[in-house]
Amino acid sequence: MTKKISDSTVRRLSHYLRSLEGFEEPGGTVSSEELAARGQTTAAQVRKDLSHFGSFGKRGLGYQVDELRTRLRRILGIDRTWRVALVGAGRIGLALFEYPAFRARGFECVAIFDSDPDKVGTERSGLVVRDPAEFEAAVQELGIEIVILAVPAKAAQEVASRAVDAGVRGILNFAPIRLNVPPRVPVEDVNLVMELEALSFALSQNERDA
Amino acid sequence: MTKKISDSTVRRLSHYLRSLEGFEEPGGTVSSEELAARGQTTAAQVRKDLSHFGSFGKRGLGYQVDELRTRLRRILGIDRTWRVALVGAGRIGLALFEYPAFRARGFECVAIFDSDPDKVGTERSGLVVRDPAEFEAAVQELGIEIVILAVPAKAAQEVASRAVDAGVRGILNFAPIRLNVPPRVPVEDVNLVMELEALSFALSQNERDA
Repeated sequence: MTKKISDSTVRRLSHYLRSLEGFEEPGGTVSSEELAARGQTTAAQVRKDLSHFGSFGKRGLGYQVDELRTRLRRILGIDRTWRVALVGAGRIGLALFEYPAFRARGFECVAIFDSDPDKVGTERSGLVVRDPAEFEAAVQELGIEIVILAVPAKAAQEVASRAVDAGVRGILNFAPIRLNVPPRVPVEDVNLVMELEALSFALSQNERDA
Repeated sequence: MTKKISDSTVRRLSHYLRSLEGFEEPGGTVSSEELAARGQTTAAQVRKDLSHFGSFGKRGLGYQVDELRTRLRRILGIDRTWRVALVGAGRIGLALFEYPAFRARGFECVAIFDSDPDKVGTERSGLVVRDPAEFEAAVQELGIEIVILAVPAKAAQEVASRAVDAGVRGILNFAPIRLNVPPRVPVEDVNLVMELEALSFALSQNERDA
């Protein structure tokens, strides 16, 4: 597949799926207008977004809720299991590991690593915390595909590079730095510091404008 | 101020500040090229971003690290304290409340609310969990300016509306829905489900391409 799907399209697909998950009645249909209203976009945008992935729905009849839900799950890659390791057993990483939505989307937590000797060997979220020295062996042995990077900024690049070298395929990055990894390895950044600063910036602007 | 600063500019300002916080030597200078390299952008972009906020640095001499750091903190609104309440005392909200970067940026946690009667009255992160019935009174009494919304999707809009009516000025939203609030109330969304789906989408695309 050569066509690049934009990040904003992917985000809208997530919104459509969220809407469809809210439908209770089995076998119902939904119009592009209804999906648009819930995703805060237009019906034309819904049709365009879905058209990237083949033919959906029937003109005038809308989309089958069950079918569209199944196909969106497949498109988003959450119709299967992903084997995930957490590196950095701090509160935020562990909170994510125990987040119900995480497991519900097929993200299976198979290992936790932490460089703190007091944590290594203890149990967190039902897993024994491992020494980072075991990382490469564990990636092979457990088939780890995704790493959640929840280490301090100064350690993040080294962990990311080791993960890529070990064969990890994607990274969910909570460290407040931009990682330098090959383009074949997707990285999603969750930068809480930046979200906080964006919020305080907007609030300060409001004050300056007032 | 009438000029709208884009979200991506604000994010780059955060990156520049992160870079400056890494400089150890007091009284040093930094060039726009150095800031650009660390923020993965161009020197021209750095100069343009900073020019929105007045005059910085001297041609050929670069920026004073201390001065630029102080001014970026002021621009981003983290040179002051923000009074924050957490609504929804689940793991992710509590993890954020205890996140060192949160306090370091002047976000002061003053109250926690949860609708679970088993949690109300118990202590979390050094605060006694309050009944949501007390919410409006507490916003007044404690001067709550920001709400961290960490409740299930189906409860989020109601809490957001109550927060806005009570005089809350901004929302950090962890619930996986788009909130409907007046434009004067900035909302930053941290949608972990969407980040996960974006990552699994990218990984699945790689597989389809392979």
